[in-house]
Amino acid sequence: MPKLKLYNTGEYWLIDHIRRYLKKFLNKRLISPYNRFNVVVGPGDDSAVIDILNNCSVVISTDTLVENTHFKLNWAGLFGIEKYFYFLGYKSIAINISDLSAMGAVKPLFCLVSLGLTPDCSIENIDRLYDGIQSLTKKYGMNIIGGDIFKSENIIISVTIIGVAKQKSVVTRAGAKIGDKIYVTGNLGDSRAGLEILQRKNDKTKLNSDEKYLVLKHLCPPIRIKEAEMISEYATSMMDCSDGLYLSLKTIGNESNVGMKVNVDKIPVSKQLINWTKNEMINYSVIGGEDYELVFTSGYDNLDKKLNKIKVWQIGEIVSDTGGIVFYSDKRRIRIDTKNIFEHFSV
Amino acid sequence: MPKLKLYNTGEYWLIDHIRRYLKKFLNKRLISPYNRFNVVVGPGDDSAVIDILNNCSVVISTDTLVENTHFKLNWAGLFGIEKYFYFLGYKSIAINISDLSAMGAVKPLFCLVSLGLTPDCSIENIDRLYDGIQSLTKKYGMNIIGGDIFKSENIIISVTIIGVAKQKSVVTRAGAKIGDKIYVTGNLGDSRAGLEILQRKNDKTKLNSDEKYLVLKHLCPPIRIKEAEMISEYATSMMDCSDGLYLSLKTIGNESNVGMKVNVDKIPVSKQLINWTKNEMINYSVIGGEDYELVFTSGYDNLDKKLNKIKVWQIGEIVSDTGGIVFYSDKRRIRIDTKNIFEHFSV
Repeated sequence: MPKLKLYNTGEYWLIDHIRRYLKKFLNKRLISPYNRFNVVVGPGDDSAVIDILNNCSVVISTDTLVENTHFKLNWAGLFGIEKYFYFLGYKSIAINISDLSAMGAVKPLFCLVSLGLTPDCSIENIDRLYDGIQSLTKKYGMNIIGGDIFKSENIIISVTIIGVAKQKSVVTRAGAKIGDKIYVTGNLGDSRAGLEILQRKNDKTKLNSDEKYLVLKHLCPPIRIKEAEMISEYATSMMDCSDGLYLSLKTIGNESNVGMKVNVDKIPVSKQLINWTKNEMINYSVIGGEDYELVFTSGYDNLDKKLNKIKVWQIGEIVSDTGGIVFYSDKRRIRIDTKNIFEHFSV
Repeated sequence: MPKLKLYNTGEYWLIDHIRRYLKKFLNKRLISPYNRFNVVVGPGDDSAVIDILNNCSVVISTDTLVENTHFKLNWAGLFGIEKYFYFLGYKSIAINISDLSAMGAVKPLFCLVSLGLTPDCSIENIDRLYDGIQSLTKKYGMNIIGGDIFKSENIIISVTIIGVAKQKSVVTRAGAKIGDKIYVTGNLGDSRAGLEILQRKNDKTKLNSDEKYLVLKHLCPPIRIKEAEMISEYATSMMDCSDGLYLSLKTIGNESNVGMKVNVDKIPVSKQLINWTKNEMINYSVIGGEDYELVFTSGYDNLDKKLNKIKVWQIGEIVSDTGGIVFYSDKRRIRIDTKNIFEHFSV
């Protein structure tokens, strides 16, 4: 029998497979010589959560950017290589803060930065990478407490982030209830459009202002930590939208055992994306990934009125799980073409 | 002016460069909404240490194995690919536990495992990798609480490990005092010999029992966590010997502002290494890396008598920093050929 390969199963199957393996061994109450540590959220959510103090939980996550998987160095031309390294550093921290934000009111405190570098990498580029990292760690009052440097054939930027949250305040993917409303925190689809512009460009490409906006949304995603703190008081489930709205909703649906009705006309999109994409909006707003907006559910209707300091968009509601996720526009059901969903391990 | 490249500066220069950059921004007292966190040890030691509870510190480290930098898949033939993936999983955790051990009496509690995988990787191999990881996390009562899976052109295994230690009990690289004795916890040089055997072998190679022992020392390094706990009561400085004795001593010397006299005849070596290497012992015992034994200093002479449950070897003593590190054999000074030191970024 031929061996099952990763390109047969895909990323989501593997994550589920590993998660089931790890669950067999997960020991929820670890006793150290000094304290008890309860694993409140283990593998499979945006971050892990451990109750470590009497009044607070430690929230931990890790995310990696790898050259030729997540970015290419020949995309640098538009900005110059040093500015591009700055963006890479910025993004490596932004996506990790996003994983913490997705758990609710989390204060990021520390990170470890591991860098795989090629021998011909210039010190200036590494310095700019750290400037990009530092721009965010400074802004959010974080410390870089450690890391690792090693040789690699491609550039690898692997960050582990550690924050704290008030105990019992974290929001997982598993709490959505029938009747809850579904919300997102900002425009979806920009990042995938930006990625496609980078992939198609060549040395002579000049970007118009819409394209530049979309590319910068891909390189420097928004950070929703302030929003997450305010949302967490009202949210029943939440995750970040790193793999696209469709997969995020599917995950919340599976974890919470619920179905959804989503009005695609309510999904917020930028005027730049409308200008750029013309007719294929759903491939971007529903399927496109890496927007790093939050998707959440809440028992409250019209939450944008309660949350007057931040903006959220109500895009649908939670229903029983019999129908799965139904997308509609103008009251007519529409089919989502899932072949456009990004799969890491396809060949 | 041509740009300074990493192959001009090397790994140690870069680590020092980054560390100085990070020190500028290090904010030792972070105030979260829930607690104060003091960074006791920041970037540049084996692990970071944060005082987080009244009676204990959190100890955190990260270490990565990358295909073609740290290992090659064509080294698998001797054991079969599945067993080899088991070894990779084992080693990825062992080297991280080693980073915690190097700080003293640390109880490892949690780890996050990030995997970069190629699309043609078989699920069986990934399962065996996790079996190797799990064999150690189970043995040491640890939980795998999270991680990340992504596509990569090479296999990448990046682990972040988190443990706890009694507050103020951690041992850094900076405490060695003049008159202290220098100790190691076990045989040095085996791992480099094992690595060379793997590099030279081809499909027809059959290993004798000495070679097999040396290769297994490279693939499954020892874990000195019990030793570290007992040693920490007596040690003034400590680090793990992952980049070889010479570089470890140099680091402790620099961090503690001291010099050293080391008797190479006292460095413990295995009979298998003696059989295999014949005349070039120093290239292995002094220069060779990845043995993951602990190197430490202590004000106590003949510590092996106090530590009767574990074995340590006294190899030299701390002197003033004017002479640097002096190696001698039979009372005659010997020069160490530093061109044999492993440099990640050489081309």
